[in-house]
Amino acid sequence: MSEPGPVALVGVGLMGASLGLALRERTDVETVIGVDPDHATLAQARRRGAVTDSAPLCDAVAGAGCVVLAAPVTTLPALAAEVLAASGDTTLVTDLGSTKTRLMGAVGGHARRRFIGGHPVCGGEHSGPGAARADLFVGATWFLTPGEEARADLYERLHRLVGAVGAHPTAIGAEVHDHLMAVVSHLPHMLAAALVNHAADSAPEGREALRSAGPSFRDLTRVAGSNPELWADILLDNRAAVLDASSGLRRGLEAVEASLTRGDRGALVDVLARGRAANARLRAPLDPATPSAVLSVVVPDRPGALSAIATALGHAHINIEDLSLRPGPPGGVGVVRLVVAGESAAEQARVVLAARGFELDAPTDVEELG
Amino acid sequence: MSEPGPVALVGVGLMGASLGLALRERTDVETVIGVDPDHATLAQARRRGAVTDSAPLCDAVAGAGCVVLAAPVTTLPALAAEVLAASGDTTLVTDLGSTKTRLMGAVGGHARRRFIGGHPVCGGEHSGPGAARADLFVGATWFLTPGEEARADLYERLHRLVGAVGAHPTAIGAEVHDHLMAVVSHLPHMLAAALVNHAADSAPEGREALRSAGPSFRDLTRVAGSNPELWADILLDNRAAVLDASSGLRRGLEAVEASLTRGDRGALVDVLARGRAANARLRAPLDPATPSAVLSVVVPDRPGALSAIATALGHAHINIEDLSLRPGPPGGVGVVRLVVAGESAAEQARVVLAARGFELDAPTDVEELG
Repeated sequence: MSEPGPVALVGVGLMGASLGLALRERTDVETVIGVDPDHATLAQARRRGAVTDSAPLCDAVAGAGCVVLAAPVTTLPALAAEVLAASGDTTLVTDLGSTKTRLMGAVGGHARRRFIGGHPVCGGEHSGPGAARADLFVGATWFLTPGEEARADLYERLHRLVGAVGAHPTAIGAEVHDHLMAVVSHLPHMLAAALVNHAADSAPEGREALRSAGPSFRDLTRVAGSNPELWADILLDNRAAVLDASSGLRRGLEAVEASLTRGDRGALVDVLARGRAANARLRAPLDPATPSAVLSVVVPDRPGALSAIATALGHAHINIEDLSLRPGPPGGVGVVRLVVAGESAAEQARVVLAARGFELDAPTDVEELG
Repeated sequence: MSEPGPVALVGVGLMGASLGLALRERTDVETVIGVDPDHATLAQARRRGAVTDSAPLCDAVAGAGCVVLAAPVTTLPALAAEVLAASGDTTLVTDLGSTKTRLMGAVGGHARRRFIGGHPVCGGEHSGPGAARADLFVGATWFLTPGEEARADLYERLHRLVGAVGAHPTAIGAEVHDHLMAVVSHLPHMLAAALVNHAADSAPEGREALRSAGPSFRDLTRVAGSNPELWADILLDNRAAVLDASSGLRRGLEAVEASLTRGDRGALVDVLARGRAANARLRAPLDPATPSAVLSVVVPDRPGALSAIATALGHAHINIEDLSLRPGPPGGVGVVRLVVAGESAAEQARVVLAARGFELDAPTDVEELG
């Protein structure tokens, strides 16, 4: 891919530095400018080759084609405002934060055309640029939360950049994102801490429970090794959804306890069997490669139309493998060419888009693919 | 090690067949007789080389030096009674079950001299002899629950057998064992099912939460893939301790929710930081190899004296690397030579044993080690 101008990484810890390595190894981005308040972190990111240059924030973002905010969630609203003010009209600004609603709400006015939220669902046990890996994003879902005003060309640019580092870009509404993450990420982090603390506090007849933990317990509590300050802020930022998920889980646990109390083996087997089935769905190998299918959709001449198309497909779990804008008739209307995995996904996409009033262009000849 | 007579494995699923492979690869046990009600399972175990022979239960155990019950927990009390009745006076009988209190209570009378409960803390994602591995037990804690009447020579034999397949034999009281396992194994299994079911049932605006799960969620729910029937029985068998652990965890979770509700960042950071510290203790690398230390303890002439010594040290987290009985003065009193990791562990062991009224023999010359 050809990136217009340098990429600026604001924050070069594990995530930022990994993105720097990935951009330098997997794309033709030549200049990656690192920004970080911590000089040692920045120096380490340079030594690792994660950034080619470093600069103060304003200088770094002024000429950048894309600015990625890779900083703690609490800092993002102010940082986004600062970066959007200091960067030019063609600069895309995005972030890697674990929560999206508050940030998307904080970006105001004209800046909403250039800001598209992002969240790659991946991470590592260790923090800092020393733990950075160019393949950190390979195979990961990378959520994108374009607002209604997001510019189509900038969305296309971000989609390609995310795909180029090996992730699957998936458009989603910010609030839906935060509810999903409360269930599959934020609650599990909170739960792992509660579980390992419970074991650490348990010592029947003075024998410490934690010293008898086997491999399965270690699997369950691995994420308890995450940074406490960062995670306290993530939980607070998504408080309502996390509380909702936590009380839902507690009710589920109480139901299992009730089955256990009344010795209801059938109910216990049922809950464990449902868990096993869900677990199997979670680990199911991806479908064998199906020939890609292409569909072309007319993008109406209004802000956010491409975002709406991508979000509708993301919501329907249709993975967009590639996305490219083509000029349309005069008046600013374009056509977006979407590549999806297989003809049945394409058919499902046509139904979803037609239901939302989008006009499908004449079917593209499959020969054209490549 | 030299095993007196064949080993009979009653049940040749994942655990039984893995033990068969381990015995054949890592010890000089020559004959491993498999018993299993399922002919296909037994045939597969033979093909894998996990057993050298197969026989009906009574024939298999009649001449065995050691019988290992590797069957579901619900079947163990009746199976233990049957095997103890059908085997000779020198046959050691043990099991691999995940719960111990009910089983130890069920073995009665004279048979308590020959039955020593066991529980290797390990397992695999897949069941059956096809998934068996000779190294399954390497590095695992293997709990032993000798009753007060257990014969010293049989305890010594089992300790050596467990060590020979690569595990760490650790004596423990049956009830303490079950409380520990409720906290670090049974509750986590129940919780993993509740968590994955909660995610499977969550679909904000129709978007399935399970389809957005990342690697950390998969870590937490891996054990939800366990066999529902077997695990329902384990939970029921250890019901009181599991209920206690579950309500303890729920209270911990409610406390985190309360901090979150009132926006108490300090309290959240504290709970996450405690979790991170406990997590680090759980994953701390073992101490670098220290020179082994030896101590010799006089074994009084009463049943269960060696079990009491081993259990006292197990309870104090002192790992017995090797244990051998030596004849003592006439009257049946012997001396047990214990090898532990390092002089400070030996000193701690001396204090623990002296406090329980055991007499330490003259210090053994370290030169003797080998």
